[in-house]
Amino acid sequence: MWSEQIDIMGQWGCVYVGEGVTKQTAELIIAAALDRVGLVVIDNGAGPGADRLVADLVKAGLEVRVLRVPGGEQQKGWGLVSAVYDAAIAGGVGRDGWILAIGGGALSDAVGFAAATYLRGVVWGVLPTTLLAQVDASIGGKTAIDLPQGKNLVGAFHLPRWVLVDPDWLGSLPPSQWRSGWGELIKTGLLVGKPMWTWVQNAPPAWESSAGAIALIETAVAHKVKVVAEDPREQGVRAYLNLGHTIGHAWEASGQLGQVQHGEAVGVGLLGALRLSELLLGFPDDYRLNVHEILQRWSMPTELRGALASRLLTIMTRDKKKKAGQIRWVLMNDLAQPTLAPVPPDLVYQVLRELGASTD
Amino acid sequence: MWSEQIDIMGQWGCVYVGEGVTKQTAELIIAAALDRVGLVVIDNGAGPGADRLVADLVKAGLEVRVLRVPGGEQQKGWGLVSAVYDAAIAGGVGRDGWILAIGGGALSDAVGFAAATYLRGVVWGVLPTTLLAQVDASIGGKTAIDLPQGKNLVGAFHLPRWVLVDPDWLGSLPPSQWRSGWGELIKTGLLVGKPMWTWVQNAPPAWESSAGAIALIETAVAHKVKVVAEDPREQGVRAYLNLGHTIGHAWEASGQLGQVQHGEAVGVGLLGALRLSELLLGFPDDYRLNVHEILQRWSMPTELRGALASRLLTIMTRDKKKKAGQIRWVLMNDLAQPTLAPVPPDLVYQVLRELGASTD
Repeated sequence: MWSEQIDIMGQWGCVYVGEGVTKQTAELIIAAALDRVGLVVIDNGAGPGADRLVADLVKAGLEVRVLRVPGGEQQKGWGLVSAVYDAAIAGGVGRDGWILAIGGGALSDAVGFAAATYLRGVVWGVLPTTLLAQVDASIGGKTAIDLPQGKNLVGAFHLPRWVLVDPDWLGSLPPSQWRSGWGELIKTGLLVGKPMWTWVQNAPPAWESSAGAIALIETAVAHKVKVVAEDPREQGVRAYLNLGHTIGHAWEASGQLGQVQHGEAVGVGLLGALRLSELLLGFPDDYRLNVHEILQRWSMPTELRGALASRLLTIMTRDKKKKAGQIRWVLMNDLAQPTLAPVPPDLVYQVLRELGASTD
Repeated sequence: MWSEQIDIMGQWGCVYVGEGVTKQTAELIIAAALDRVGLVVIDNGAGPGADRLVADLVKAGLEVRVLRVPGGEQQKGWGLVSAVYDAAIAGGVGRDGWILAIGGGALSDAVGFAAATYLRGVVWGVLPTTLLAQVDASIGGKTAIDLPQGKNLVGAFHLPRWVLVDPDWLGSLPPSQWRSGWGELIKTGLLVGKPMWTWVQNAPPAWESSAGAIALIETAVAHKVKVVAEDPREQGVRAYLNLGHTIGHAWEASGQLGQVQHGEAVGVGLLGALRLSELLLGFPDDYRLNVHEILQRWSMPTELRGALASRLLTIMTRDKKKKAGQIRWVLMNDLAQPTLAPVPPDLVYQVLRELGASTD
């Protein structure tokens, strides 16, 4: 069990990692000298651990209002945020109060946004219960909700005071949820290098044996904490975390949203980014062949099923417009040596076709 | 014409004050090296100056999307914020884009909140068109919307890059709007002292001659800029700006919201705060008699019409709970010498009764 403090953009918070770390929640809230009254928002899929935690908080003398909501990307909107405000007001949560989010990344993104804006911002904490949330979404202070027009269009930067990454939540995770996080772990393995990359190469599917997952989670969390602290505004190294995401996001946005898991989209996106790295930077092709083999072992897709190459390109261009410049692709010079570079659209098109995207 | 930069909480912005300063808007946006594409949100009551400004922006080569909305406290909710998001997306406003708010304080509070949260925050500017917005609401970076449960319950701190305080907007302001800002100017006169206090004492109602108002506006803006820069988180001197607001807010919230102008409520609140200062701190009573005379000259209320003393006390107590401690009253030791102090509830009750609040 270990912890690390993050200080960015005038805010600070701590990440705690290890089995059983959830038990420290009450103690941390009390040590923060906040108001006794707080709100706990629980993802319906969080399991019985959430009830145990609430009982712990009450036993420690805290006054807890509980709000149970469905998780998932479809819920990540103003409706959920508004429900959090209502519960906080009804529960008497004040400026010195606190809010906890127990659930996956969609839930904590929305609850974090509510915490960022309720009374112009109250202290909040996250207990991520899915692999994806533990290794990625819960760390770094980016909160957001979706609009009908697109994902994460509304949000705020609001660092959680506490992120408690406890692998105990993962015990009952279904294979689809493991796959959803696994793409991010492969990505992190490529960015961090050995020994993590070796662990990733050799890991059996976690639903067969999740023992190995814990070391991977710890390494991935430590890496994200380091990167976020170094580059909170995503002007440098934090952008490398987008390895595999340019194609992955486009695939998700192309109408597959909800049909393909985020980690699955990132997995295929990695194949594309590595292929472009080979063509442009002479990156050796054995890494891509490795990733392909790992994805197959985890029963994850290796092709852009049901996607139109031209539509994917259009979606990427829309992203480009938002940054008022060229798409900055994350490519690899070597293992653990990412770089940012532009890629000619015809080369992108060629690689999308190689990955199985259709012409019409 | 003068300007001052504010740097607080990792953000910065400039306040520009003077007749005709509006004309600099296009130049400032272009100098900021942002994207060409931006959104201008215009309060329906803003007058023809808004159209001239939009024409200026277009002439300068900017690509402007215009959204016209009704102003006023009733509009200050998620509906308006959502309309701003939709217009920004439809207009293609990106992370390097910008948003301008032209209107009163309610409009700029809501548009500022939209700017704080759209794409996790874009640059924005305010052109306050009412006296209240010019001397108070537009400065300091507090943005907010109301919920059905109360005022300003949701918001963010997001400093406008540009605040352009141009008295030219005030030319056609109706008496009710002058009164709404005037309470804040009396308050600032008491906090700043001479010579401003002398100007406040002698000012004829601005709808008879608004010439004198300009010096008052400049002094009030300069004072608020100084205080906000010194104490952005309202942990010290910024709290003094609440002089007169404890009773004033309670009166507004007691069902008079929309029936009494904010400045009118602050005016009567000042009478109460000065009376408490006399009773507890020996503050001389001629200031209160002065304020009473000024309010009468401006046809502003001097009594808590239609308010129940017990209900006002309850509302204040609710505020107290939110701060997890006692109400911190702003009282006066002497002209320009405010202080924070608790006040016994029975003394508050007595003063509310003196101000005409009823017993049942």
